[in-house]
Amino acid sequence: MDIDEILSKVQKGQLDLESAKQELKSTSFLNLGFARLDTSRKLRQGCAEVVFCQNKSDDHLLEIYKQIYQSEGEVLGTRANLHQASLIQEHIPQAIFDSHSGILKIEKENKAHKGLIAVCSAGTADIKVAEECAQTAEFFGSCVKRFYDIGVSGLHRLLSALPEIEKANCVVAIAGMEGALGTVIGGLVSSPVICVPTSVGYGANFKGLSALLTMLNSCANGVCTVNIDNGYGAGYLAHQINRQSKNF
Amino acid sequence: MDIDEILSKVQKGQLDLESAKQELKSTSFLNLGFARLDTSRKLRQGCAEVVFCQNKSDDHLLEIYKQIYQSEGEVLGTRANLHQASLIQEHIPQAIFDSHSGILKIEKENKAHKGLIAVCSAGTADIKVAEECAQTAEFFGSCVKRFYDIGVSGLHRLLSALPEIEKANCVVAIAGMEGALGTVIGGLVSSPVICVPTSVGYGANFKGLSALLTMLNSCANGVCTVNIDNGYGAGYLAHQINRQSKNF
Amino acid sequence: MDIDEILSKVQKGQLDLESAKQELKSTSFLNLGFARLDTSRKLRQGCAEVVFCQNKSDDHLLEIYKQIYQSEGEVLGTRANLHQASLIQEHIPQAIFDSHSGILKIEKENKAHKGLIAVCSAGTADIKVAEECAQTAEFFGSCVKRFYDIGVSGLHRLLSALPEIEKANCVVAIAGMEGALGTVIGGLVSSPVICVPTSVGYGANFKGLSALLTMLNSCANGVCTVNIDNGYGAGYLAHQINRQSKNF
Amino acid sequence: MDIDEILSKVQKGQLDLESAKQELKSTSFLNLGFARLDTSRKLRQGCAEVVFCQNKSDDHLLEIYKQIYQSEGEVLGTRANLHQASLIQEHIPQAIFDSHSGILKIEKENKAHKGLIAVCSAGTADIKVAEECAQTAEFFGSCVKRFYDIGVSGLHRLLSALPEIEKANCVVAIAGMEGALGTVIGGLVSSPVICVPTSVGYGANFKGLSALLTMLNSCANGVCTVNIDNGYGAGYLAHQINRQSKNF
Amino acid sequence: MDIDEILSKVQKGQLDLESAKQELKSTSFLNLGFARLDTSRKLRQGCAEVVFCQNKSDDHLLEIYKQIYQSEGEVLGTRANLHQASLIQEHIPQAIFDSHSGILKIEKENKAHKGLIAVCSAGTADIKVAEECAQTAEFFGSCVKRFYDIGVSGLHRLLSALPEIEKANCVVAIAGMEGALGTVIGGLVSSPVICVPTSVGYGANFKGLSALLTMLNSCANGVCTVNIDNGYGAGYLAHQINRQSKNF
Amino acid sequence: MDIDEILSKVQKGQLDLESAKQELKSTSFLNLGFARLDTSRKLRQGCAEVVFCQNKSDDHLLEIYKQIYQSEGEVLGTRANLHQASLIQEHIPQAIFDSHSGILKIEKENKAHKGLIAVCSAGTADIKVAEECAQTAEFFGSCVKRFYDIGVSGLHRLLSALPEIEKANCVVAIAGMEGALGTVIGGLVSSPVICVPTSVGYGANFKGLSALLTMLNSCANGVCTVNIDNGYGAGYLAHQINRQSKNF
Amino acid sequence: MDIDEILSKVQKGQLDLESAKQELKSTSFLNLGFARLDTSRKLRQGCAEVVFCQNKSDDHLLEIYKQIYQSEGEVLGTRANLHQASLIQEHIPQAIFDSHSGILKIEKENKAHKGLIAVCSAGTADIKVAEECAQTAEFFGSCVKRFYDIGVSGLHRLLSALPEIEKANCVVAIAGMEGALGTVIGGLVSSPVICVPTSVGYGANFKGLSALLTMLNSCANGVCTVNIDNGYGAGYLAHQINRQSKNF
Amino acid sequence: MDIDEILSKVQKGQLDLESAKQELKSTSFLNLGFARLDTSRKLRQGCAEVVFCQNKSDDHLLEIYKQIYQSEGEVLGTRANLHQASLIQEHIPQAIFDSHSGILKIEKENKAHKGLIAVCSAGTADIKVAEECAQTAEFFGSCVKRFYDIGVSGLHRLLSALPEIEKANCVVAIAGMEGALGTVIGGLVSSPVICVPTSVGYGANFKGLSALLTMLNSCANGVCTVNIDNGYGAGYLAHQINRQSKNF
Repeated sequence: MDIDEILSKVQKGQLDLESAKQELKSTSFLNLGFARLDTSRKLRQGCAEVVFCQNKSDDHLLEIYKQIYQSEGEVLGTRANLHQASLIQEHIPQAIFDSHSGILKIEKENKAHKGLIAVCSAGTADIKVAEECAQTAEFFGSCVKRFYDIGVSGLHRLLSALPEIEKANCVVAIAGMEGALGTVIGGLVSSPVICVPTSVGYGANFKGLSALLTMLNSCANGVCTVNIDNGYGAGYLAHQINRQSKNF
Repeated sequence: MDIDEILSKVQKGQLDLESAKQELKSTSFLNLGFARLDTSRKLRQGCAEVVFCQNKSDDHLLEIYKQIYQSEGEVLGTRANLHQASLIQEHIPQAIFDSHSGILKIEKENKAHKGLIAVCSAGTADIKVAEECAQTAEFFGSCVKRFYDIGVSGLHRLLSALPEIEKANCVVAIAGMEGALGTVIGGLVSSPVICVPTSVGYGANFKGLSALLTMLNSCANGVCTVNIDNGYGAGYLAHQINRQSKNF
Repeated sequence: MDIDEILSKVQKGQLDLESAKQELKSTSFLNLGFARLDTSRKLRQGCAEVVFCQNKSDDHLLEIYKQIYQSEGEVLGTRANLHQASLIQEHIPQAIFDSHSGILKIEKENKAHKGLIAVCSAGTADIKVAEECAQTAEFFGSCVKRFYDIGVSGLHRLLSALPEIEKANCVVAIAGMEGALGTVIGGLVSSPVICVPTSVGYGANFKGLSALLTMLNSCANGVCTVNIDNGYGAGYLAHQINRQSKNF
Repeated sequence: MDIDEILSKVQKGQLDLESAKQELKSTSFLNLGFARLDTSRKLRQGCAEVVFCQNKSDDHLLEIYKQIYQSEGEVLGTRANLHQASLIQEHIPQAIFDSHSGILKIEKENKAHKGLIAVCSAGTADIKVAEECAQTAEFFGSCVKRFYDIGVSGLHRLLSALPEIEKANCVVAIAGMEGALGTVIGGLVSSPVICVPTSVGYGANFKGLSALLTMLNSCANGVCTVNIDNGYGAGYLAHQINRQSKNF
Repeated sequence: MDIDEILSKVQKGQLDLESAKQELKSTSFLNLGFARLDTSRKLRQGCAEVVFCQNKSDDHLLEIYKQIYQSEGEVLGTRANLHQASLIQEHIPQAIFDSHSGILKIEKENKAHKGLIAVCSAGTADIKVAEECAQTAEFFGSCVKRFYDIGVSGLHRLLSALPEIEKANCVVAIAGMEGALGTVIGGLVSSPVICVPTSVGYGANFKGLSALLTMLNSCANGVCTVNIDNGYGAGYLAHQINRQSKNF
Repeated sequence: MDIDEILSKVQKGQLDLESAKQELKSTSFLNLGFARLDTSRKLRQGCAEVVFCQNKSDDHLLEIYKQIYQSEGEVLGTRANLHQASLIQEHIPQAIFDSHSGILKIEKENKAHKGLIAVCSAGTADIKVAEECAQTAEFFGSCVKRFYDIGVSGLHRLLSALPEIEKANCVVAIAGMEGALGTVIGGLVSSPVICVPTSVGYGANFKGLSALLTMLNSCANGVCTVNIDNGYGAGYLAHQINRQSKNF
Repeated sequence: MDIDEILSKVQKGQLDLESAKQELKSTSFLNLGFARLDTSRKLRQGCAEVVFCQNKSDDHLLEIYKQIYQSEGEVLGTRANLHQASLIQEHIPQAIFDSHSGILKIEKENKAHKGLIAVCSAGTADIKVAEECAQTAEFFGSCVKRFYDIGVSGLHRLLSALPEIEKANCVVAIAGMEGALGTVIGGLVSSPVICVPTSVGYGANFKGLSALLTMLNSCANGVCTVNIDNGYGAGYLAHQINRQSKNF
Repeated sequence: MDIDEILSKVQKGQLDLESAKQELKSTSFLNLGFARLDTSRKLRQGCAEVVFCQNKSDDHLLEIYKQIYQSEGEVLGTRANLHQASLIQEHIPQAIFDSHSGILKIEKENKAHKGLIAVCSAGTADIKVAEECAQTAEFFGSCVKRFYDIGVSGLHRLLSALPEIEKANCVVAIAGMEGALGTVIGGLVSSPVICVPTSVGYGANFKGLSALLTMLNSCANGVCTVNIDNGYGAGYLAHQINRQSKNF
């Protein structure tokens, strides 16, 4: 029931006051004790809750996967490890694990992928983050093209891919070290560019701080930044932009 | 001429090789000596070059305004001061200056404003940045609604404005101090949320670092961040997302 | 003997000068050589010394537990590991270890729990710190209610719990990542709010710095902050506030 | 009207649905356009909204003072300057300005001051922050005693004042430079200690960072920290703790 | 084909337009799917692409070594570990691994080493970085002399080596801790000095930040700095300077 | 009266208990209301309290100078400005102000200067801090020799002065920018070296952080560091070391 | 006299021991009391001492200019202001001041400029630093070409200038904000690239830190970095590299 | 031979010029290839070179111990581990290892310990650093008294030990967390106080940064600071101060 329905039932005398107050508050999550699953998120935001697997205990993780699977018919989890994958697959055999990106998911069949997102990465070490991004956007229904190892130390690699990148509704630029890829792409395309700094590098990289500051200070227009290594966040946002675009 | 045309002319013998090489490179900017105006930017990215007025010398600034006005028929400048406004208005009387946002512009008449962007700010001190954002998006043709002073210390102010905010193709959340506004809005709406940390605050705010980190680490989905106080960048990106949305 | 007694005995000739000087200094701690147990702390501050187990050598830890147990009849230890728990339990079988919070304690029976403290955490990963906080306050005699996984990305979960949270004499808000929970609660309740930033997160979280700065810069009134992951400190302070409140 | 009343009127047919929805949202703040005064704050949190004067434009500030004065009969403003004081006093002659603390207030007469808060500062340069703290707590109705220049480089000054400090329901420890005062007091008293780092110092003080980290890492129990130079926040919180204490 | 050739063929009708566009872009790298080898780098910059082995997967690493070996006849890899060395040596037996520097290379025989580079290190713990530097420069054809353990705490060790150091076309100064070596050498020689801060040290060294800042702020003339522990970068740059010097 | 006397008087019945307690606490400072002068400091530490003039109000400063002058017959003040100097000189004409170091003092005549301290500075911009150091040590009775502009970019300048520097009981090394002077001197002399980082420099100097970290991480033995620009602290400590040395 | 001469004179009995020791140390600088001019620097390093004017007192500055002019016949000063320029020009009329770069110099006539250095800057606001760099290198005898406003947000501007840049013996890349210019140039040319981060920008630029980290972490080969805004240092080093190059 | 002897021999014709130059440079260290032992350090600074064992390879470590043992008859090594201890003891059976402090030494018998140094630590976790400090000073011949676990959270423990601490020629204050011990001791004693911040703590301690800043900003006189966890450096400096004191 939404707020209109609840008030309407109150007006008609079909709902007493105390129940109405409870209803207003309790319909939208599932209290597991250790966690409160946000079951109204899909209604509110268009995508169901995603599981951040890292550091979750086995019993908690399993319970959460079961609950979401039951209510949504599919589950997307990120930053899972091999042990967690085995655990879930034991109970939900159709779960699929990609060790490189850490994505552990159960996905509905024959999902359509629409629009276009370009996921670009500077080096091979950034692929892990790039895949988390790409697979997240694909899970939600976006079509994704990957452009890997096109960092600016060999600029012709990027320029060669540019015509394809320009077709996307949203571009994701993923880079560690000095993170210049975001700015260079930002100056060349007309669609929004989401920058993902990665922790790839050493020394004065300070675990991604260098790339993060680069991207935040970009002299190019139409760029924004998410947290270091946050492929998931970039994929989610890229999907949001893509799904509301004209050619989706 | 674009690359196709140039190559075509070469094939037809209408252009010699050396000229073609130069053509490929020189058509797209105007070399003023002290600056190289990116005259191909509108073609490439959809919006003409914007003038960052701060610290520019008087003669440089005037020359740049004149050149852009001549080629585009309008100019958008940011971070201008009163002195610069007088200077430009002396030579281009139709220039308009908004001292609060620092926007100094010459704008074509009867511009249509389409789609919808919601510009939200946490406190009154954030209005300066919010106006830079709103007026930038409006200059490029977006329709903007402002929601000021809806910070989370009085949550009901935000909740009251929520139904209107939810209608936007893109939401901008502008906040200093602890910057929680971005996360709270990000958890409530389904469209992309661009967070702008401001330098409003003192002490452990460290000139906006606090709000910046808050926004980068947001636990909400569908949010991204631009540089501290970068209202312009947020307005530009919001316009990009808005203009490619279905209901633009 | 306190200073009054000592001076009184000196006046009456019952204590010579040198002894008096020593007495003034030596009555209040127990010198174990490697450590000086602050045996006068309970008298001075209302709670006996608590053992910070981390990095203590086995013989030191055991000796300290024995001494405090002998003088106080109960011991509270924090940040203990499994090995340390086994060691202490071998010699003091009634010791109880909670592996999640790291609390290793021997507690008097039938302890009353009075007043009310609300311990709130944003995500499931923050539960470890939340339990250190809750169990500390309970050990000292406070009544604690737990509200876990009520982070602001799903605001209705928090609003639903609000009526119960408002009843507490003191609220503890525990959150990692962007740490917005403290501010949002701070704007909604009238009792003091103790914020505990946690190191939960990654990237620009910088091991809790993000949540720490958020909480220090909170735009809400009536909030304060303790060290990152310092559940113990928050629990102690919450108990102090609770125990001196009218309805304790 | 609170939520119960509104629902009750809906049930009785005295309020139509759309009006009810608006009522739920709009009763609790006053939209001035540039600001939304949180008029329900006193009801919600026990103290009316306080004005942070710094950087507010003259017309905004005056309008806010007038509105709060009208609804509350008194106004507390912080970080005001001499110009702002003159402006307000011109329109509201009974306004009182303390140039040292920056407090600009209109206060009801014959206000009772109850309980006890001890405001301690390490050096004379910290008095500015200390007064902001003390006068805030006094405005809300707390009794405050001041102990200034009792920094730990001359420990006997603190020890001499200790018996009086120990009587307070809450102690505020204000210090810049190395900020050790908070820890030393925290180890000596049994009531909660609120630490306020100040920006007093130079060099590796880094504008208060040094004192802030000292206070966050305090080895003493029962201490918490607020933002650098945040005397207001400490005074507010101290009043909250004091007002709910048994001997208030 | 370079741009001249391509345009020439277009002019002569030997190449159609679409093919010409592709040719312009695709000739200069080898797309392995997961990586795009920059095969035109030697032509463009004078040295072939170097393999940064760290964190590369086995199959990726092997494929990259094979491809570069095939096209260049030799391969230089840095930051390899023992496992990676075994892997490569199994397939390319002539690969040589130096466990101290992490250099894993296949090198053409009878390579001449010309000019002179002086590689100086402050302490024995810096040798690892110094060898990465020295062996990189040697691989590209520079003659290198090593001066190890000449840190400024025993200044006579440096002064004794000075006459030999002065003969080099380029000096590399490698130091951790306080990193003063770069400044002292910079004040004594007339050739360019490349400073390499190392992460050797502890505490306020902050993993090399101390030495990095020292070197960036050097009061000596003619010094520059590369990333912390970046022996490779310094060796590459030293070779560039050496190879274009008169006495190379 | 010291503690022995007080207890003795109590034993003999010459002092009642309450008076004794007060006596123990109140003899050692002078409560001016806004400040508590530490009048027992000379007895306790060998040097009377020194006035940190910066930011003190006129009436406070004057009162403090008068009180210390009355009790000690001389006053040392640091970081005074021209206005403060005029103020004090108006009331205490024999006060002497050195605008370069900011020292404002009234000094007893014919003071002996014993032992030897060497105050070394790297550049001319460091002289301000160096003079604060030198004049502080001289005020307390140490003999000081100055060695200015001997920075390591011209090492022979330092080596030339070395024989004289080696004669000192304590060496102070004052340097900004990269701050290498402390380490180089530390490796050459056998007496303790106090390093003073200065804020001289720009860019990655970060207001003295660079020199501070250099000095803290020095690879030389026998060096310690004080706060950035803290010439006073170094002068005080150098005097302490000098005064207890055999040849003082 | 150099060391050989001195020892030779000692051997021949033409110099007594004590004089020889002094001679070894004192020939190479001029002690002005407040400064020790490094008169042997030209001999030792190839370029005479340069005057850093900032913060120097008038009398010191004038004395230094006079002394260097007398011994060298020309003087290069950096970071001078208008007042200092007037002062010097009053006494040395042939002194020339460039207010934009802050260069204040007296230069020998008909100086030859050899080799080639390319000085590139990203934006117009970086010109100040770029001119300090270019004019420094020119003073020492290098030929310099300037390429201004070629930042990567409009990549075609850089690509257009590339053929000319490639001809230089050394390239200087000057950029603020995100500082990507250094990496992009570094990936395109074969000569050494000196990166100069500038403090141009705002917010998370942190006064040049962003550009500094970008440049230090560059994924391109053959790049090094100097301090933020250090145009002088880059110009000096570029000249060193240029002067020892084959085509100088 | 010192410089006097060498010059004298040259004068007498007993030494030719080239040999003299070499002699001047080579007498004072022993070149092991991988290291240059500073054999003249004892002559120059009063203490022989100490071995920093951490990260040294086995063969290097053994060779260094052997060489120093041969020339000095004793060796002091710090930060050794168990493996290194076994290695050295196998070849030099009289070597003694203290696993707590990491000291691995061979020491001459019947060494006298003179003067007095007070080594104070705040908590039991700081003992590791405190022992490195104490044993270093003892090795060089100082008499050391230890005062452990006297942190300021229980101030009476420190006050009780004060009379003994006051007798020392030099006090070392070792503390982690908030590091207030240094300031409190600094305000109570008249001898120099060397502060050693330790990395003991968590969260906003930032691996010792908190205690380091506290100590650098101490409001007490006569204190200085060494690097985080640098017990060795403090012990060395304390010995220097002690050995030149009157009562040594």
